[in-house]
Amino acid sequence: MARTCSIADALEVIGERWTLLALREVLLGCRRFDQIVQQTGASRDILATRLRKLVDAGLLERRQYEQHPPRYEYHPTEAAKSLHTVLLTLMEWGDRHINPGPPPTVWEHSCGEVLHAQVVCDHCRQPVELGESRAVRLGGQPVER
Amino acid sequence: MARTCSIADALEVIGERWTLLALREVLLGCRRFDQIVQQTGASRDILATRLRKLVDAGLLERRQYEQHPPRYEYHPTEAAKSLHTVLLTLMEWGDRHINPGPPPTVWEHSCGEVLHAQVVCDHCRQPVELGESRAVRLGGQPVER
Repeated sequence: MARTCSIADALEVIGERWTLLALREVLLGCRRFDQIVQQTGASRDILATRLRKLVDAGLLERRQYEQHPPRYEYHPTEAAKSLHTVLLTLMEWGDRHINPGPPPTVWEHSCGEVLHAQVVCDHCRQPVELGESRAVRLGGQPVER
Repeated sequence: MARTCSIADALEVIGERWTLLALREVLLGCRRFDQIVQQTGASRDILATRLRKLVDAGLLERRQYEQHPPRYEYHPTEAAKSLHTVLLTLMEWGDRHINPGPPPTVWEHSCGEVLHAQVVCDHCRQPVELGESRAVRLGGQPVER
């Protein structure tokens, strides 16, 4: 049986390229279907399916903004909003390891410096390094010391 | 034309559920095909395709460990290793927003506390909040103030 895992569960909902790109656009402030199609490059059919799934999963809210013909905007819920750190960490990784040129997107943090996202332990505030943490539970099972 | 974006580029390589789950296993120390099949629940065909793509993209190295029959292990490159913060951030999000029960996987950080990943600005060390940064370049284009 596959490992029980919140990464796997999360990927059931958002583990697909167009889904994450649609969420990127909504978090950037694009609310309308045609805008999201244009900025992601997704086909209309694929995007419609992905948006419906995100509404069902509680990540987007659909709000009508026009009556005739009926048209809707997509707004991020709190769950979707808190994905922004995942997207930022992924962007940082893509800038470093996939994209050969200068970063296409650059954010300036409220402190005034160019934003580079770093992942830290929320207790000691030190950067998290691979291999220095110890699993105490893994896939729902306790791990013996 | 779709937005030029390192998130999109990164997702070309790793934007698929089984790909990320395979990388999770390799980063946890699973090196062999059968182990990865078992822990991810992927079909053998799908997994073989995904692993080949990851080798081609420079995220995994394939090393032979048996001659007759030929068998291989998969080792993460530096690019794959630095994905661990993306996976950790995604796990944290899944624990909070998707998985209703207690977290299936718990890490103890080297500081001795249960690890909760937080994303901070690497300059001022403050947590990154949605909406407080300003895009100075977006999709390869400068953004006017």
